[in-house]
Amino acid sequence: MERALNREDQREVRELKDILPKNTANHVPLTPVAFLFRTADVHPERLAVAYGPRRYSYAELRDRCLRFASALSGRGIKRGDVVSILAPNVPAHLEAHFGVPMAGAVLHSVNIRLDAANIAFMLRHAGSKMLIVDIEFLPLARAALDDSHSQIELVVIEDPSIVADVSQLLTYETLIESGDAGFAPLMPADEWDAIALNYTSGTTGDPKGVVYHHRGAYLNAVSNTLAWNLGQHPVYLWTLPLFHCNGWCFPWTITALAGTHVCLRRLDAETVITTIADEGVTHLSGAPIVLSRIVNAPASLVERLPRGLAMMVAGAPPTATVIAAAEQVGLSVTQTYGLTEVYGPCVVCEWKDEWNELPSTERARIKARQGVRYHLQEAMDIIDPISMAPVAADGTTIGEIMIRGNIAMKGYLDNPAATAQAFADGWIHTGDLAVKHPDGYVEIRDRSKDIIISGGENISTVEVEGVLMEHPGILEAAVVARRDEKWGETPCAFITCRPGVDLDRSEIVAFSRDRMAGFKVPKTIIFGDIPKTATGKVQKFLLREQANALADDV
Amino acid sequence: MERALNREDQREVRELKDILPKNTANHVPLTPVAFLFRTADVHPERLAVAYGPRRYSYAELRDRCLRFASALSGRGIKRGDVVSILAPNVPAHLEAHFGVPMAGAVLHSVNIRLDAANIAFMLRHAGSKMLIVDIEFLPLARAALDDSHSQIELVVIEDPSIVADVSQLLTYETLIESGDAGFAPLMPADEWDAIALNYTSGTTGDPKGVVYHHRGAYLNAVSNTLAWNLGQHPVYLWTLPLFHCNGWCFPWTITALAGTHVCLRRLDAETVITTIADEGVTHLSGAPIVLSRIVNAPASLVERLPRGLAMMVAGAPPTATVIAAAEQVGLSVTQTYGLTEVYGPCVVCEWKDEWNELPSTERARIKARQGVRYHLQEAMDIIDPISMAPVAADGTTIGEIMIRGNIAMKGYLDNPAATAQAFADGWIHTGDLAVKHPDGYVEIRDRSKDIIISGGENISTVEVEGVLMEHPGILEAAVVARRDEKWGETPCAFITCRPGVDLDRSEIVAFSRDRMAGFKVPKTIIFGDIPKTATGKVQKFLLREQANALADDV
Repeated sequence: MERALNREDQREVRELKDILPKNTANHVPLTPVAFLFRTADVHPERLAVAYGPRRYSYAELRDRCLRFASALSGRGIKRGDVVSILAPNVPAHLEAHFGVPMAGAVLHSVNIRLDAANIAFMLRHAGSKMLIVDIEFLPLARAALDDSHSQIELVVIEDPSIVADVSQLLTYETLIESGDAGFAPLMPADEWDAIALNYTSGTTGDPKGVVYHHRGAYLNAVSNTLAWNLGQHPVYLWTLPLFHCNGWCFPWTITALAGTHVCLRRLDAETVITTIADEGVTHLSGAPIVLSRIVNAPASLVERLPRGLAMMVAGAPPTATVIAAAEQVGLSVTQTYGLTEVYGPCVVCEWKDEWNELPSTERARIKARQGVRYHLQEAMDIIDPISMAPVAADGTTIGEIMIRGNIAMKGYLDNPAATAQAFADGWIHTGDLAVKHPDGYVEIRDRSKDIIISGGENISTVEVEGVLMEHPGILEAAVVARRDEKWGETPCAFITCRPGVDLDRSEIVAFSRDRMAGFKVPKTIIFGDIPKTATGKVQKFLLREQANALADDV
Repeated sequence: MERALNREDQREVRELKDILPKNTANHVPLTPVAFLFRTADVHPERLAVAYGPRRYSYAELRDRCLRFASALSGRGIKRGDVVSILAPNVPAHLEAHFGVPMAGAVLHSVNIRLDAANIAFMLRHAGSKMLIVDIEFLPLARAALDDSHSQIELVVIEDPSIVADVSQLLTYETLIESGDAGFAPLMPADEWDAIALNYTSGTTGDPKGVVYHHRGAYLNAVSNTLAWNLGQHPVYLWTLPLFHCNGWCFPWTITALAGTHVCLRRLDAETVITTIADEGVTHLSGAPIVLSRIVNAPASLVERLPRGLAMMVAGAPPTATVIAAAEQVGLSVTQTYGLTEVYGPCVVCEWKDEWNELPSTERARIKARQGVRYHLQEAMDIIDPISMAPVAADGTTIGEIMIRGNIAMKGYLDNPAATAQAFADGWIHTGDLAVKHPDGYVEIRDRSKDIIISGGENISTVEVEGVLMEHPGILEAAVVARRDEKWGETPCAFITCRPGVDLDRSEIVAFSRDRMAGFKVPKTIIFGDIPKTATGKVQKFLLREQANALADDV
């Protein structure tokens, strides 16, 4: 799939190149922020944002974002500064994807499921200058700021559904009102400038800050339209968290297409399906668990789904059962694959007409494959990480998924060692192991770094093991993924107690609950010896087999 | 429509930018050539090219283009060299859009309607290293080479429909066969490198060589998909000449979408309609005359058109009658506007749902507007060329259409004065005069440079006047556009004879025929005085009124 390209022969470049330099009429740094200006110019009256009874147009969205940027500048935010936001999928979170870069700043969107210590680390590491927080997460934000001993400015997003006293705080709407819609936005001087910062859960040690450039965000925003065959004016439901790779760049994609962003605070099946029906939603995306929740909802809800609804799914592939159930209700699933380092999905299981003739189970099997590179991504291949040779396209030889192209991070913030490692040999090493089928479509077989994906969230096994090992009664701990129909995967802990100590499940769970986010707490706990190799390495392969062989009720 | 952007404040850029440099894993020069590699990887078996009974897949198209590039390299073509092609819309012409840049070379696609002297000028000016010519145009190519005293290599494209002796010549197929499909293509080292060279007809003096960069070709190829709502796998009929702005970048667009290129040598209504029906064509583009030919064809042909056929039109806007006739047969027309300097169309009359409720004549009136900038073009506005202030969006104040962004030429080859003029004040000056409606959609009112667009071809009035003035009996000549239902516009000449000389229409026509391409020969000739301003400038405005007031049979 990877082709030898000759980029070396540079001596022969003719004068054509040199005598016609770039100028301001023929070269502008690419930035996805520009899409808002175009859409507000062309479709000023179209519905941009719907959030419960609240709804406003593209002209208003543009003006609000300009006010936002103006207010940030007015409060001392400068080019390259980091502005953090901790919020569910509310309109302010969407606006931050335009308002923050329009102030020349870098958007740091924080996962609302993290604990205060994690968030505190990120705010410190990012050198964040401001934290914008949704009122539901104000206690978490305060705990994180206390933890980080940070004096940064706090801005609170109010919500009609949540009553609280914010009289001592700067509210988001007050901030916006203080800004000027005639503000001249600080567009990037170079498309390589940073637009966003997204922390990965990290598999070892501290989270890593993935820095996105404007160029990549622009290209992925456009590439989404090709990968998903999006036409003009999609009505897009925000089930995918905006803090996951900037919502896979969909804030910019949907805006470019003058679509409607339907914002949502709660993602329970009833709210999701009712909103789909009431707002005429055409597209949504997210982890397989969202799909699973929709198709497994009570029949009275499921029958309200419009035919032709399209969902883009990434993360652990949905099971064949879920895909078949989705097809049954006329929901068209597009499977993708990606990671934070490449702006979310950049590999898609691009559908072929001839597959429509296959039986349903076979279709589901193919649909669960990760597929081929995005249209605007340069290269993706399955490569032997030792020899760096592509593996045979035989559907059985395992190699590592590697990606390179323009939809790829600048690197990790203040982490040259990890950056160098990620880009070794001119490829982004994903750490995911896969096979390549004879048709070139790839399929994940294992995760070389043992990450667990539970409900769309990455869980580092190393992190959970580290916490468990803090318990005085635990001698050894190894955590692996256990397959789960509902969550995709859940953490399963293998524990060896110290001699003479007798622990039980509830004690481990209580210990963990105090020290990590709820979704990371091991759901299954098995006591006993842990198998190791001759050199003392834990054989996680065997543990995974054991975890997946357990009866459902364990 | 144009927004003041603050790009000045550069002092504050934070270390984020500097500590994370580009590398080969996260930065690749944009080039539309890459689309062929992706599509051949993902859809190797899909039909890429259909030309009469001949048809081949994307795997074959890729391999042929690699062989082509390999053969060019083998024959001494180097990075930055110009390779010219003189051909109708045959497969070789399409292949040149990939094969030539894959050799690192610059594609110069020549208008087959030009005369030998014009072509000779271009070959010399471009410093072309090779001329690839379709067998039908071999005599024209030979005359051009004789005229230019050029020794460059000639490659002839054979065709099953044309019998000729080519035993002394290198044929295109022999060239391809001599190449290696395993060739490592010379991809651009910089996306600012030239990919193509397209000569404009020029309104004064010699034609100008517009140089395209890879970046702009890539972005316009993608932008076409957004402007036209193209999904995967369009079946595209090549009615638009490939030598017009590289077929408006559609060779790359259709390839990116794994569509089928249906090639055509002849564009008569019967061939066009029969091919549309037989090949299941979904999309085509071209000048309004092609649309006019289709809808005005005999009913037995028109009834063969599939419903939902989409046509993108540019050049002089189609008349309301033609648009209404197109709607009647279910043909959906998208009106666009552009010019060679911006890679063809980059302004589109983006349709709004609410317009569907309007009466047919009103819809046609709106549809004939030029519209708004392409999604991936940065800015387009109607500007007073003296004050450089945008005009009021009142539908009556006239200004010049100006464009800037990434879909804009590098400049004119070896013509610094014209390049500086085109980019003056940071905008591309189109020379077209237009108004801006209150909704921001623009509509052309006049051409400041008096160019005539006849059947999609630009005719410089200055050029025709210059030839007429060579006639010993002519004292003065002024040429203007006359509206024409069939051709859009045709040249109308106003001639004042020298005292005592009496010329007639047939003599002028015969004189012109010997000295210019047929489509430039004045179709209407009016003898008499030519009105001038006090300072002696011809009042073309009055002449145009007079020409358009003539009875149809004059």
